[in-house]
Amino acid sequence: MRNVITLTTDFGLQDYYVSAMKAVMLGIAPEARLVDVSHDIPSQDIMAGSWVLKNSAMLFPSGTVHTVVIDPGVGTDRNAVALKIEDQYFVGPDNGIFSLLTTDRSYSAVKLNKKEYLRESRSNTFHGRDVFAPAAAHLSRGVTLEELGEPLDELISYRWMQPIADKDGLEGTIIHIDKFGNLVTNISADLIDEVLAGKDVKIYVGNVILNEINTTFGAVTEGEPVAYIGSAGMLEVGINKGDAQKMLGVQKGAQISIILQK
Amino acid sequence: MRNVITLTTDFGLQDYYVSAMKAVMLGIAPEARLVDVSHDIPSQDIMAGSWVLKNSAMLFPSGTVHTVVIDPGVGTDRNAVALKIEDQYFVGPDNGIFSLLTTDRSYSAVKLNKKEYLRESRSNTFHGRDVFAPAAAHLSRGVTLEELGEPLDELISYRWMQPIADKDGLEGTIIHIDKFGNLVTNISADLIDEVLAGKDVKIYVGNVILNEINTTFGAVTEGEPVAYIGSAGMLEVGINKGDAQKMLGVQKGAQISIILQK
Amino acid sequence: MRNVITLTTDFGLQDYYVSAMKAVMLGIAPEARLVDVSHDIPSQDIMAGSWVLKNSAMLFPSGTVHTVVIDPGVGTDRNAVALKIEDQYFVGPDNGIFSLLTTDRSYSAVKLNKKEYLRESRSNTFHGRDVFAPAAAHLSRGVTLEELGEPLDELISYRWMQPIADKDGLEGTIIHIDKFGNLVTNISADLIDEVLAGKDVKIYVGNVILNEINTTFGAVTEGEPVAYIGSAGMLEVGINKGDAQKMLGVQKGAQISIILQK
Repeated sequence: MRNVITLTTDFGLQDYYVSAMKAVMLGIAPEARLVDVSHDIPSQDIMAGSWVLKNSAMLFPSGTVHTVVIDPGVGTDRNAVALKIEDQYFVGPDNGIFSLLTTDRSYSAVKLNKKEYLRESRSNTFHGRDVFAPAAAHLSRGVTLEELGEPLDELISYRWMQPIADKDGLEGTIIHIDKFGNLVTNISADLIDEVLAGKDVKIYVGNVILNEINTTFGAVTEGEPVAYIGSAGMLEVGINKGDAQKMLGVQKGAQISIILQK
Repeated sequence: MRNVITLTTDFGLQDYYVSAMKAVMLGIAPEARLVDVSHDIPSQDIMAGSWVLKNSAMLFPSGTVHTVVIDPGVGTDRNAVALKIEDQYFVGPDNGIFSLLTTDRSYSAVKLNKKEYLRESRSNTFHGRDVFAPAAAHLSRGVTLEELGEPLDELISYRWMQPIADKDGLEGTIIHIDKFGNLVTNISADLIDEVLAGKDVKIYVGNVILNEINTTFGAVTEGEPVAYIGSAGMLEVGINKGDAQKMLGVQKGAQISIILQK
Repeated sequence: MRNVITLTTDFGLQDYYVSAMKAVMLGIAPEARLVDVSHDIPSQDIMAGSWVLKNSAMLFPSGTVHTVVIDPGVGTDRNAVALKIEDQYFVGPDNGIFSLLTTDRSYSAVKLNKKEYLRESRSNTFHGRDVFAPAAAHLSRGVTLEELGEPLDELISYRWMQPIADKDGLEGTIIHIDKFGNLVTNISADLIDEVLAGKDVKIYVGNVILNEINTTFGAVTEGEPVAYIGSAGMLEVGINKGDAQKMLGVQKGAQISIILQK
């Protein structure tokens, strides 16, 4: 049974966009259980949406259908797609939004071009309502990927900037800043284990230097900065009961350096 | 079966208001499926709420009960009402919130004055919890409109400022600005077809002049302004991958002129 | 049947945090009905979360499981707990978040330390996903409190500053400001009845003096300040169709004085 449909958009909730999508879904699949993932993805920020998907979509029950609409290219010739990754289904624009999910997973994808599974009247600017909501609802009712459209070999894929490892240590980037101001880097716990192997380090980020990687905020005094492995398995920098973005003066895209001490 | 209950409010989510409404609804109708439409309608902005309803409520499955609480006059002598429009049910204050739905649709309405369908202890400032939530829950369980209260002939109704058409073209107003900064006007696609009939035009809005009505953002270069028919069937002005409100310096209520070129 | 699980967090929705919690819950309890209470509790504001719970949690249907994650001490030695108050279940950190619920209600509580009811791999910074979501889901499937962990005699408990009553009147504090800018005080309707007993008063708050306690906003002209008993049973100060926080220049923690007039 695929009765859970999730929604991930950058639509906010002050407009009718999310409501219209839910209405269309329930019209086609009255038994579907709608689960809001987020409507607060920053406007048109494809990688921010991909980050949310990467860290939660595969945890949902088997057969969940994820509707993902961060779609700055709506109405252009970008494809609308549906895909299956392991036991999860996805619909959304082919604009890189699925990148972080498909980097290390195989998938099968189709182009959403079968008119019988789209809304009859179709706008040029709101495929959430007219293309993706109906496709998701039909998937949840048991329509197969193959029925929804013709196969597509490859999706557009972006990747984060990769960290650089050399004899001096690691050079990484802040790829995400969360609601609490914690700085998430592109440096994974695995890479740290491999390159740093428990040796002494100095960590340079924003206006501070940290001397170790701890396990959690509480390892330091309130108001002090701390580096730790976050819940996504990546190195993060936070402030115990504080906001690292504000206090360290760091923005998304900033550099973080971990230098091995001899 | 009327088991879907939607919620549309200006309550935000930092307070207990939405939670208390959901609790009361589930207490009366444990099988109800609650669907959040929006809790981010701008505070006390009746027409903004009406705009969301107009563009999504009638798309919901037959028998959906829509709970709408944008209610600056709570505790005064404004009526609390329930109404039926086609196969959809609504409860909310009689303050114009249903205006854009009822402009061109017939409806039957009742005053919510039967104590057995309200909460026993009733506050003067939170009818969302004490009046509208219970009424919506009872409707969803099959209570009829007639049982909820005595008939009401006419609801309070507002309308948008109407666009003006003359031999020179069309004069309209920005009635809504969406989350992306797109400017929604009160000029419908039908009116454009009728008055402009495909002739050459110049469109004056904020600090720009546009030379045509396109079909979507992608028709212009990134960062350029574009006029198009939006997903609500009205003329909109946006910026391809940008924010028209910010870039054109335009606020809600601003004028837009479409001048026929001879 | 305990199939309703509510979520109350300070996570916002731009990250994967809420989504991952929902995914884990549905993985364990596929039939659970997830109800978002709020993800907009101000970051790490335990008393603001407690205020929302106090005013809505006990209204939910019998057997509802409330998941509450405002957790600045995650990863420290603070306990993770589950508790039962009357017919409602709660899971969350033992950091005072349940204070306003347990002040005048008895409860039974356990420490969440049975590994079989937690996520297998457990992060130090995201117990919402790894501890509280699984515990809530297991509770909703019928696991008992006793099975989840060992009994805990007492939870950490905070209380609001108490109002002071003397022969001159009442001295109170603004404990919450709602989305509309209404000022909620720690002075209950009961205390007002007892101390003021209908006598004439002057109310001093921010930059205004009010001469009476009214029943609702509509008792005064638009734009005028008004004191009234709010929907939580506490004295509030608002502006009819306006924002009292902005117009009276008052912040959370400010003083309000009610002086008896001889």
